[in-house]
Amino acid sequence: MNFQNPSDTICALSTAAGVGAIALIRLSGKDAIAIANQVFSKDLANVKSHTAHFGKLFQGNEVLDEVVVTVYRNPRSFTGEDSVEIACHGSRYIQQEILKLLLQKGARLAGPGEFSLRAFMNGKMDLSQTEAVADLIMSNSRAAHKVAMHQMRGGFAHEINDLRQQLLNFASLVELELDFSQEDVEFADRTQLENLIQQIKLKVNRLADSFRMGNALKNGVPVAIVGAPNAGKSTLLNALLNEEKAIVSEIAGTTRDVIEDTLVIEGIEFRFMDTAGIRETTDRIEIMGIERSFEQIRKASVVLLLFDLKNEKEDIILTQLQNFKATTILDDQLLIAVFNKSDDTNQNQFSKLTGNGIFISAKNRHNLDELKKQLLSAVQDFSFAQDQLIVTNVRHYEILKKCEASLQRVEEGMQNQIPGDLLAMDIRETLYHLGEITGTITNDELLGNIFSKFCIGK
Amino acid sequence: MNFQNPSDTICALSTAAGVGAIALIRLSGKDAIAIANQVFSKDLANVKSHTAHFGKLFQGNEVLDEVVVTVYRNPRSFTGEDSVEIACHGSRYIQQEILKLLLQKGARLAGPGEFSLRAFMNGKMDLSQTEAVADLIMSNSRAAHKVAMHQMRGGFAHEINDLRQQLLNFASLVELELDFSQEDVEFADRTQLENLIQQIKLKVNRLADSFRMGNALKNGVPVAIVGAPNAGKSTLLNALLNEEKAIVSEIAGTTRDVIEDTLVIEGIEFRFMDTAGIRETTDRIEIMGIERSFEQIRKASVVLLLFDLKNEKEDIILTQLQNFKATTILDDQLLIAVFNKSDDTNQNQFSKLTGNGIFISAKNRHNLDELKKQLLSAVQDFSFAQDQLIVTNVRHYEILKKCEASLQRVEEGMQNQIPGDLLAMDIRETLYHLGEITGTITNDELLGNIFSKFCIGK
Repeated sequence: MNFQNPSDTICALSTAAGVGAIALIRLSGKDAIAIANQVFSKDLANVKSHTAHFGKLFQGNEVLDEVVVTVYRNPRSFTGEDSVEIACHGSRYIQQEILKLLLQKGARLAGPGEFSLRAFMNGKMDLSQTEAVADLIMSNSRAAHKVAMHQMRGGFAHEINDLRQQLLNFASLVELELDFSQEDVEFADRTQLENLIQQIKLKVNRLADSFRMGNALKNGVPVAIVGAPNAGKSTLLNALLNEEKAIVSEIAGTTRDVIEDTLVIEGIEFRFMDTAGIRETTDRIEIMGIERSFEQIRKASVVLLLFDLKNEKEDIILTQLQNFKATTILDDQLLIAVFNKSDDTNQNQFSKLTGNGIFISAKNRHNLDELKKQLLSAVQDFSFAQDQLIVTNVRHYEILKKCEASLQRVEEGMQNQIPGDLLAMDIRETLYHLGEITGTITNDELLGNIFSKFCIGK
Repeated sequence: MNFQNPSDTICALSTAAGVGAIALIRLSGKDAIAIANQVFSKDLANVKSHTAHFGKLFQGNEVLDEVVVTVYRNPRSFTGEDSVEIACHGSRYIQQEILKLLLQKGARLAGPGEFSLRAFMNGKMDLSQTEAVADLIMSNSRAAHKVAMHQMRGGFAHEINDLRQQLLNFASLVELELDFSQEDVEFADRTQLENLIQQIKLKVNRLADSFRMGNALKNGVPVAIVGAPNAGKSTLLNALLNEEKAIVSEIAGTTRDVIEDTLVIEGIEFRFMDTAGIRETTDRIEIMGIERSFEQIRKASVVLLLFDLKNEKEDIILTQLQNFKATTILDDQLLIAVFNKSDDTNQNQFSKLTGNGIFISAKNRHNLDELKKQLLSAVQDFSFAQDQLIVTNVRHYEILKKCEASLQRVEEGMQNQIPGDLLAMDIRETLYHLGEITGTITNDELLGNIFSKFCIGK
């Protein structure tokens, strides 16, 4: 990809692959209008920006399709360049032939994310905003949508720039002292400086810490369902899925091919991972299966441990639960014990279990709401996410961890009264990293990495 | 569906289902602009037709998405009604939430083909043209695209209306005679009338006859590959598919999920049907398999009969070929004998086979072009299809067959000098049928049948 001042014109199918009533093909670049003009029945050379034109698209002398062409003139387009959108009939054949035609007339097929890249290069969005566009397109739930939208609209960039500004002020003070180092002046009160770096560190920490939550919101909260085969794992999963699916599929056809074991509860996506039943065994193959189960459990944010009240004894259940908690569950994981196949009569017989988990009947859909409530408690912090910022992008997270490290060095340096020029170097490093998030600091490799993960047509 | 003067506003996703950079949601009806105005950040009430507006879409107080809204004012829209197109970010979540939002504000989810139905009701297209729009969207090859495009642009309707006009003139003459029946006048020269009805019959016959070809062009030419398992059926299929696929997949991603055994040669689609090997057997299960093979062969337009030159004797091949031709191939089917595993040395040894089929090597891709040429000869009439009309729609075909029958009665009636009023009845019946093609004559049941087969969003 050519990152600096691209002079060519790119094109791509921008709507979902496949057959639809309408498909949209996008052209962007300095020749976009001229290229469209070569194949369209009406003259677009002097039409106004943001106008739509119905006409025929010609392939040689033959009408390839009747289309609506919309013209966006630079800088009033998504990319900031002259852009043309062709709304055609959505057959694969037409999509393909129109793209071929545009290539013949001098356009080039866009790489992944190349429209967004141009938007960034032309200053229409910062880097974190273009990344949010990609997240927005992939978001499957209200929560994921919300964090992506907030980031796209610049909330995240605003916070990062705010941090950078504070650090810049700090750096200037420290560097000013350097210029007068012979004279042993202190322009900034040391305590005040220490307070400032504390504040900045706190903010960076908070952002980095939000990543686990942000990642769960964006990609779905990983939930492992653990239990013996007869404990009712799949009945439970189906009971949960069926209820919610009825709501999701109200809008015909749009969500039919969603992955089976993904469930959205109150706007939060949960990804259920199937695990083999866990019990003590000497069978080699079973051991391998169980090892895989433990791997899955380690990846989960929430572990549902299912017990079968009809076939297991109270004391054994309690022992197993306590063992599992002690040996398997990590500090930042939520364990929910689920006592399945409960009914009004048998619940009284399990008084020792009360308070240690939820009594449900997957088959009779009894107490599933309580289970959902507990699942949601794993992301209860989301309420705070509505106002505050959340990091969802692994690239941003990694940069923030580097910032944490360099800020730590600044803090320690101040405590050890290291020379101002060394202090300034660590601060400059932090500034550099923060700039990588918004794209103030950038290079081709970084851009190549980011945009190659985008979908084509965006 | 409400067919007469619909007063409500419909909405649907018009681009392909799934995730894309952009999705398009369409609104049409008298409240389309007012409904969009309730959720959009800019005032659309007085904007000009065919203008695009970038802004925010609100769900309550929250920004659901940043979108481009294009306004089309009646009658200058696809449906002929006020229409709004919302180009949003193409996540499933956003698509779904925007549709929900529009429903809340008073729109209704469109049924299949309901936008096209409205275009028809508002006189933007006749019935055969709206049917062509559906065909156009489903067309997978140049040939299918071409016939659909021709029909959409009114070519077919023109021909049918021409026929109707000629018949109407004929009917008026006959009916005029009825009014003066006491006086025994003949306004129309009988021979002239007979000639006219002959001409019309000829045209109707030609159209009805074109359906087999039209159906093949639209849905793909059905080709059965027959031969013993070792004859190299799948090697041949792969050799044919691989060559062509390289061309098809030049445009990234658009055709990847096409059915494996469909092949487009010079713009014509061929559908290859796998058949079990055919040989004499007493095994029950194998007999069932062979019966199914014969069924498939009966459905095919072209039968490729494969022989293995390396393992079969010339005389046996010749006998088998002649038997197969005599017992299995129908009059309107094309049989191509394919002598596989041929090479420069063995071809001379099979002098008796020369002229009875093609020598190829599927493995070495030898002579595949000749095979393709022969496949194309099955649809050689397509060159004539470029100028003349072809019937591709089974509904039209069935109507034309009814017309043939009633025209036959008219012709016989004239020969038997039946009373003019009976003659007029048969002519009126033909007129009625032809009117059903273009929608001059219509009713709710007919429309319901046609449009229920459309996709949603069109």
